[in-house]
Amino acid sequence: MKIVVVGASGTLGRAVVAELEKNAENTVFRVGHSQGDMRVDLSDEASVDALFAQTGKVDAIIATTGNVFFGPLSEMTAEDFTLGLQDKLLGQVRLALKGQHFLNDGGSITLTSGIIADEPIGQGVNATSVNAALAGFVKAAACELQRGIRINLVSPTLLTESEAVYGPFFPGFESVPAARVALAFRRSVEGVQSGQVLKVGY
Amino acid sequence: MKIVVVGASGTLGRAVVAELEKNAENTVFRVGHSQGDMRVDLSDEASVDALFAQTGKVDAIIATTGNVFFGPLSEMTAEDFTLGLQDKLLGQVRLALKGQHFLNDGGSITLTSGIIADEPIGQGVNATSVNAALAGFVKAAACELQRGIRINLVSPTLLTESEAVYGPFFPGFESVPAARVALAFRRSVEGVQSGQVLKVGY
Repeated sequence: MKIVVVGASGTLGRAVVAELEKNAENTVFRVGHSQGDMRVDLSDEASVDALFAQTGKVDAIIATTGNVFFGPLSEMTAEDFTLGLQDKLLGQVRLALKGQHFLNDGGSITLTSGIIADEPIGQGVNATSVNAALAGFVKAAACELQRGIRINLVSPTLLTESEAVYGPFFPGFESVPAARVALAFRRSVEGVQSGQVLKVGY
Repeated sequence: MKIVVVGASGTLGRAVVAELEKNAENTVFRVGHSQGDMRVDLSDEASVDALFAQTGKVDAIIATTGNVFFGPLSEMTAEDFTLGLQDKLLGQVRLALKGQHFLNDGGSITLTSGIIADEPIGQGVNATSVNAALAGFVKAAACELQRGIRINLVSPTLLTESEAVYGPFFPGFESVPAARVALAFRRSVEGVQSGQVLKVGY
C-alpha cells in the first residue's frame, strides 16, 4: 500500500511510520510542515493540492497533526477558539475532503483526535470541542464516502513520551506509549472498519 | 428571571419564548438578526458586546440559531465546511464566551444542536460535525464555568413545523413539535443540570 502520513516527524507520526513499515508491502510517504519527504501546509488549499499532485493515487491517508488552543474559559475569546477550528479540525478535514479524490478504491483515511474529546481537562474547552467535531466528521463522512473508502479516528490518551511536558495538565490520566497508539492506525489502514473512533489507553 | 433568547423569531425561538413566558417571573428579551426587541450578529464581536451592553446582567442566555452547510461529501470543500463552523458553532460559542461575563451568579446558557449530531443524514457531514462540536463545548465548558453558572445543549429531532421543507432529508425520522422542544429549554433554564445534552424526540 502507498500511505501518506502527514505529521510524520512528530512523536506520534514517527511511531505510526515505524509500525506501518513493519509490513514490507507498505510504502510510506513522510509528510510534514517543515520536514519529511514532502511538505504540506494543511491550512492552505493549494498546498494540499500540490501534495496530492506529488503523491498521485494512494491507498491510505493519515494525519497525526493539529494544534488547539489551551487557556481558561473565563478568558477565552472567539478568536482563541478559532485557532483549533482552523488548525486541528479544518486542517484534517481539508486533507480528508481533498484526499478522498486521490484514494484508490477501498482506501482509507485515518485522522487523530484525543482523550480530551471524552474527558475534559482544565483549560481544554477548545480541545474537547475540536476533538468532538472530528468524531462527528468521521461518523458522518463514513456514511457518504464512495468506492469502498473508509474513514476512522484514533483517539489516544496522553502519550507517555509527552508526559514530562503535558503530564501536569492530565492529573490521574494513564499515559500510553506512541508505539501502542500506532497499532490503532495500522488497524484502521489494514482493517475493515469505518466510521469508528479507535480509543487507545482510555 | 431576565432571559435573552437569540433567534427568538424563528420556529423554535418563538416556541421557547412562549414556554418561558408561561412563568410570570420571567422577562424575555427577544433578539434576532433582523427583527426582535434587540438585534445581534453573532459573527461580529462588537455586535455581541453591544447586545450585552443593552441587556445588562441577565439570568439566562439562550441561542436557537445557526446555519450549517448541506451538500454531498464528494463535492464538499473546506470553504463549504467552514460555513457551519463560523455560523452555528462559532456564533453560539461567541455568545457563550461573551455571555458568561454578563450572567448573574447561578445563571445559565442553553445552546441548540440537532439530532444529526448522533444520526447522520445524507449531505449532512457539516451538520454532524458542528453539532458534535457543540456537545463537546458544552461538556467541557460546564467544568470551568464559575459562580454557579450552568450550560446545556438542546438537541431536537426534526421539528414538525419544518417537516414540509426538510422532511425528505430525514427519512424515517420522527418529528417533534417546537412546543415540546421548548420544554427542554425551560428545563435547562429553570433546572439544576449542567453539561448535559437534552435530547428531544430521539
